[in-house]
Amino acid sequence: MNRKQITLIPLKDFPIVQTGDNIPDLILSALGKSDEKIIPGDVIVITHSIISVAEWKQYRLKDIRVSDKAVEIAEKIEHSKERVEAALLEASEILREEPILITKTKQGFITDFSGIDESNAPPGTLIALPENPDESAQSISDSLSTSVGFTVPVIITDTQGRPWRKGAVNLAIGVAGMSSFIHNVGKKDLYGYELRGSLVCLADEIASSAELIMGQANEGIPVVIVRGVNFERADGSASEILRADEENLFY
Amino acid sequence: MNRKQITLIPLKDFPIVQTGDNIPDLILSALGKSDEKIIPGDVIVITHSIISVAEWKQYRLKDIRVSDKAVEIAEKIEHSKERVEAALLEASEILREEPILITKTKQGFITDFSGIDESNAPPGTLIALPENPDESAQSISDSLSTSVGFTVPVIITDTQGRPWRKGAVNLAIGVAGMSSFIHNVGKKDLYGYELRGSLVCLADEIASSAELIMGQANEGIPVVIVRGVNFERADGSASEILRADEENLFY
Repeated sequence: MNRKQITLIPLKDFPIVQTGDNIPDLILSALGKSDEKIIPGDVIVITHSIISVAEWKQYRLKDIRVSDKAVEIAEKIEHSKERVEAALLEASEILREEPILITKTKQGFITDFSGIDESNAPPGTLIALPENPDESAQSISDSLSTSVGFTVPVIITDTQGRPWRKGAVNLAIGVAGMSSFIHNVGKKDLYGYELRGSLVCLADEIASSAELIMGQANEGIPVVIVRGVNFERADGSASEILRADEENLFY
Repeated sequence: MNRKQITLIPLKDFPIVQTGDNIPDLILSALGKSDEKIIPGDVIVITHSIISVAEWKQYRLKDIRVSDKAVEIAEKIEHSKERVEAALLEASEILREEPILITKTKQGFITDFSGIDESNAPPGTLIALPENPDESAQSISDSLSTSVGFTVPVIITDTQGRPWRKGAVNLAIGVAGMSSFIHNVGKKDLYGYELRGSLVCLADEIASSAELIMGQANEGIPVVIVRGVNFERADGSASEILRADEENLFY
């Protein structure tokens, strides 16, 4: 199989997003000002922070009433009690309190501080994860697909730590218009033997690749076009990546 | 900051690797036959299986003496007892026996079956992880750097499962010529506030991006050039990605 190259294309000069903004409109407008366009096969990767701001999934620091539990955890781990309180409000379950607060969020993600971010949050606020990132991805995918006339898969990402390896990586928290996985069952290996059931999480790999260009600081690249990936067209979601508690080896 | 695009370039027509082959020579030879060359800033990503074959880090199925422990685990999880035995030989510690065998390997990696692969293994053999992937990466980086006249970072990868998310992703198990991390401390966010200590595992993100083009089956793309990534030049390693037991949240 003679694979062509894959390109990761930053959407340049993306404006600072305000609550109420329409993300597909901003993407199409930024594309219109550039010499780029979406072509069939492109995957649009979007950092969750601009979705959370557009949807007002934020906490105003001055409005946060810190609970006793939040004070206790914040003192133990020497951390902002407002961030801990917001994390508790976003959590369905606390998995660890130290050395770092790890929760299962209401959306089912296992991550530190329920994904509550201080960085790149508008002043005086904390950014939470979108309420339903799969729905947000679907809605953006639908809008973009209608505009360009073909299905445009969308992946919404968050940079999350890993329990057993140092350093965070960008992962898919919302997926639409494609399967999150590559199913290798039935494919043959180099020597012609059938591969055992190997399941690759393509959505997470695409999310990680996009961060190579997004960066974490003030680069201001919240949207990346990933061009040339061989994905499976399906009604996928990021929820399908989450393990049920009983098969979650973290428990 | 006006980032250019990032390109993932497959090294085409790479030969099937034999034990004793010199990987840098094969890379330079494949480049010579293509219209590609390595330019400053490129990162070379190599799937570990060709390193393991070149270095003969394999098990012959017929030579494996299956221990009682391996039979016990293999029956419990309904799996090949030879693969279980090889996994035990590669392990310094068994972390879980079911629903899947998870070990800490002698190199310090936490992964299923100690990374023992049946896929893409020459017939009658199983492929193990290279003995010291950081050393292998360093040696390949040194050879390539000498040939081209500038430092060429090298990442050796393995596709591994995650304890809390479905689907495997490609991760860095050997790194040379670059830091495995991006250190964001001191950088400013979109709003000019200093970022808290956020550490991103760039080597794992590069590894994951490369698999978008490598594939897992018979695509035969074991080497990918990743062009345009902003990495930190340092004497890095994949060992630095591994958490010490006491900070490993998997324990």
